[in-house]
Amino acid sequence: MIGRLNHVAIAVPDLMAASAHYRDGLGATVGPVQVLAEHGVRVAFIDVANTRIELLEALDQTSPIASFMARNPGGGMHHMCFEVPDLDAAMRRLVDAGARVLGDGTPKIGAHGRPVVFLHPKDFDGTLIELEQV
Amino acid sequence: MIGRLNHVAIAVPDLMAASAHYRDGLGATVGPVQVLAEHGVRVAFIDVANTRIELLEALDQTSPIASFMARNPGGGMHHMCFEVPDLDAAMRRLVDAGARVLGDGTPKIGAHGRPVVFLHPKDFDGTLIELEQV
Repeated sequence: MIGRLNHVAIAVPDLMAASAHYRDGLGATVGPVQVLAEHGVRVAFIDVANTRIELLEALDQTSPIASFMARNPGGGMHHMCFEVPDLDAAMRRLVDAGARVLGDGTPKIGAHGRPVVFLHPKDFDGTLIELEQV
Repeated sequence: MIGRLNHVAIAVPDLMAASAHYRDGLGATVGPVQVLAEHGVRVAFIDVANTRIELLEALDQTSPIASFMARNPGGGMHHMCFEVPDLDAAMRRLVDAGARVLGDGTPKIGAHGRPVVFLHPKDFDGTLIELEQV
């Protein structure tokens, strides 16, 4: 069911500093900063050969990642996002398997303009998983 | 410099249960369990279209992931591994940029039989990064 790993998201305390770590230390090409006000974050994407790394910085204390940053002030791996061809079918399978979709259980429009859901980390061994319909 | 994302590693408390979560909930194909005694872990790989997810379970309390599991008893995202063509050149660049290689600074032979190093998470915004020469 799950397809490509669309991205791995890294929550960071300082997006400019994090971009420099990947650019200077790892020779990565870091894209421009995008402010996603409706998602409460500033982001920069790193294209690697087969997927993307999404660096995320909270815009303020109301950001969806603010509680993660309070627990992990130095930053950390926040979630991974898999592509699925049919989000409704994916959700039915997940619910049948006993997994929970976060929020009210209906897809939202994600940072890339496509329908997304997030799955409860307790149902996936402490990992926050995003599914994006592609 | 960095090439493909070779894998994302997820540390889990129970490899069989975690495998079932990905198989039953997400329709993923989970490979056979491999015991890597010299690395202190049991692993199972999930092939997705463009990369792999590595599920890791500690063999015992001396495992390199034991302290992570003590801090995260439910499991969590543990590291991500990028491929590099020349590990020595990568390490020189990293040291020049002020980043630290864990251990004694020399490559070890990793779980896939290739030279690897791990970078200090404090130099990469709380994320443990593995580099594998491919």
